[in-house]
Amino acid sequence: MKAAIVFKKGNLYYLDQRQLPHKEVWKRCDSLKKAFTAIRNLEIRGAPLIGVFSAYAVYVSIKDFNSSSRSKFFRQVKKVINYLKSSRPTAVNLFTSLERIEEKIEENKEKSVKELKKIILEEAKKIHEEDKKMCEEIVSFGVKLIKKGDRILTYCNTGILATSGEGTALGVIYKAKKIYKDIKVYACETRPLLQGARLTSWELLKKGITPILICDNMVGYLLKKKMIDKIIVGADRITQNGDVANKIGTYNLAILAFHHKIPFYVAAPLSSFDLNLKKGEDIPIEMRDAEEIKSISKVPIAPYKVSVFNPAFDVTPSKFITAIITDRGIIEPPFSKNIKKVVYG
Amino acid sequence: MKAAIVFKKGNLYYLDQRQLPHKEVWKRCDSLKKAFTAIRNLEIRGAPLIGVFSAYAVYVSIKDFNSSSRSKFFRQVKKVINYLKSSRPTAVNLFTSLERIEEKIEENKEKSVKELKKIILEEAKKIHEEDKKMCEEIVSFGVKLIKKGDRILTYCNTGILATSGEGTALGVIYKAKKIYKDIKVYACETRPLLQGARLTSWELLKKGITPILICDNMVGYLLKKKMIDKIIVGADRITQNGDVANKIGTYNLAILAFHHKIPFYVAAPLSSFDLNLKKGEDIPIEMRDAEEIKSISKVPIAPYKVSVFNPAFDVTPSKFITAIITDRGIIEPPFSKNIKKVVYG
Repeated sequence: MKAAIVFKKGNLYYLDQRQLPHKEVWKRCDSLKKAFTAIRNLEIRGAPLIGVFSAYAVYVSIKDFNSSSRSKFFRQVKKVINYLKSSRPTAVNLFTSLERIEEKIEENKEKSVKELKKIILEEAKKIHEEDKKMCEEIVSFGVKLIKKGDRILTYCNTGILATSGEGTALGVIYKAKKIYKDIKVYACETRPLLQGARLTSWELLKKGITPILICDNMVGYLLKKKMIDKIIVGADRITQNGDVANKIGTYNLAILAFHHKIPFYVAAPLSSFDLNLKKGEDIPIEMRDAEEIKSISKVPIAPYKVSVFNPAFDVTPSKFITAIITDRGIIEPPFSKNIKKVVYG
Repeated sequence: MKAAIVFKKGNLYYLDQRQLPHKEVWKRCDSLKKAFTAIRNLEIRGAPLIGVFSAYAVYVSIKDFNSSSRSKFFRQVKKVINYLKSSRPTAVNLFTSLERIEEKIEENKEKSVKELKKIILEEAKKIHEEDKKMCEEIVSFGVKLIKKGDRILTYCNTGILATSGEGTALGVIYKAKKIYKDIKVYACETRPLLQGARLTSWELLKKGITPILICDNMVGYLLKKKMIDKIIVGADRITQNGDVANKIGTYNLAILAFHHKIPFYVAAPLSSFDLNLKKGEDIPIEMRDAEEIKSISKVPIAPYKVSVFNPAFDVTPSKFITAIITDRGIIEPPFSKNIKKVVYG
């Protein structure tokens, strides 16, 4: 398994992540509706990967548009993009990617429908290629933070299943493991959808690394017993001041790391930064269905009548973050100043 | 449902908590082997309830002893007690109860086997009765800490299913809800065995209270958003200095509460105090089977080959505890001094 999505001969294929680790099912995404559902239902997930997938999804959704009317075509593209934007609210990569496609169309509005279709596909491929490179860059910077013998805790899934390359946080771990054989990896199961137990464990095993799986509520125990040297997580959106929205539970980890004086690193490409937003409180947090908590693999685990509160993400204030590993280098505090420096040069 | 165990006409019955909330199955415990397995497999659980159950279990295991030889009887009782003691290591109530039976036998060693059997049963009934009263006392003290409109977070299960009465932490919540109608209850699911999702939710619904169920990793989010006014949990063992061993994840909650300046209360009877131990580090922590994390209701949720680390309890240092609600009053810091005062008068 080298990638979670493949674009081949005009077709978009993806590995259905809801069925992992039990079944490896590849699906073809050939309509807007299917693309929307795949993102909405987390068949495809991970902020960078959602960005890439959604760009291809625009192409897939308009490639059979059969009129030469440019105005009709523009309206259709706009409709497709707005619909895809409504699939999930928190990861900024979805919006960044779709807005890149929009801008590209705008820049080329004099071109024919046929040419515009080609331009959309080219932009999607470019986003895909850039995302791969970003992973490589993140990994090359991030690995400098890792030492021989490090015992690293990671959260959710930030690897091949979340990006177009080797991953962000998990990519750093893969590389560190290659350099220093004795890296130990702890994976939090990541309730409710168990991306850690299902996806990160599966990826690590494929790479020949046996992770130690723990429940999310065990982190305090491990930190207190000095079983962890550092924590690395990904990000779904980072604001001007370095606040980080990431999978629910990340904030718990950051507070625990802070309290136990353990370095807490966030690894994310610049495409996950949203410099329109000043601070974490401005990030929209997705609330998801009660069933995600009340049952696991369709097996109920709680009484039917119980209420549920199910935020999919939380925000970690930058003061709890040791450094952010990006594709343009490691950003340290003060974040507001240093993020600007890295982004605007 | 008024109790989780019933002793009636010489027989010990218990509700199999592993099957809740889906099935309400009552079982008869009529042998040492069954008693051991019921405790070991968490068919019966909750520190105070384990104490009561194990006392009855001694009686059930020796009631058919058919020799009048006292020395043989003593050896048999000793064997039974030692076997039961090996069922689970952390909750002190198991040991306290069994040692009470041992002492009682010691005090009455001149009596006949028939009389000794009766003495064991009487002691078990006494432990049972005392546990009920302890709950009432804890509740009467604890409810003073609750205010109208409080939004209370609780963990694991500390109610009817964990004690002989209305419970410890959950008992306080029941009483508060009776006095102030507008109490809101958040229940953490409590991975891996989901006592919060399965048992606490079920109990609360039976009492006409609809809890809001969350995953354990969501607590930071709720505290940051000021959605919780106080946290109340139970205890499996409390040491001289007020350190508390409780269900894994309790320490995470305590750190989060401390960081967000939210009161963190522990409710437990004096029978959960172990004054032989100076500090939390001295408490043996049970490690449980990997399968508890790798599958839920026998449905696998992680790759088979993954490693697992599964401590069943953690220790919360007393400095993170606002107060301990006991059956003899509320103990506040400094705990070392005040615990002594309450215990020894």
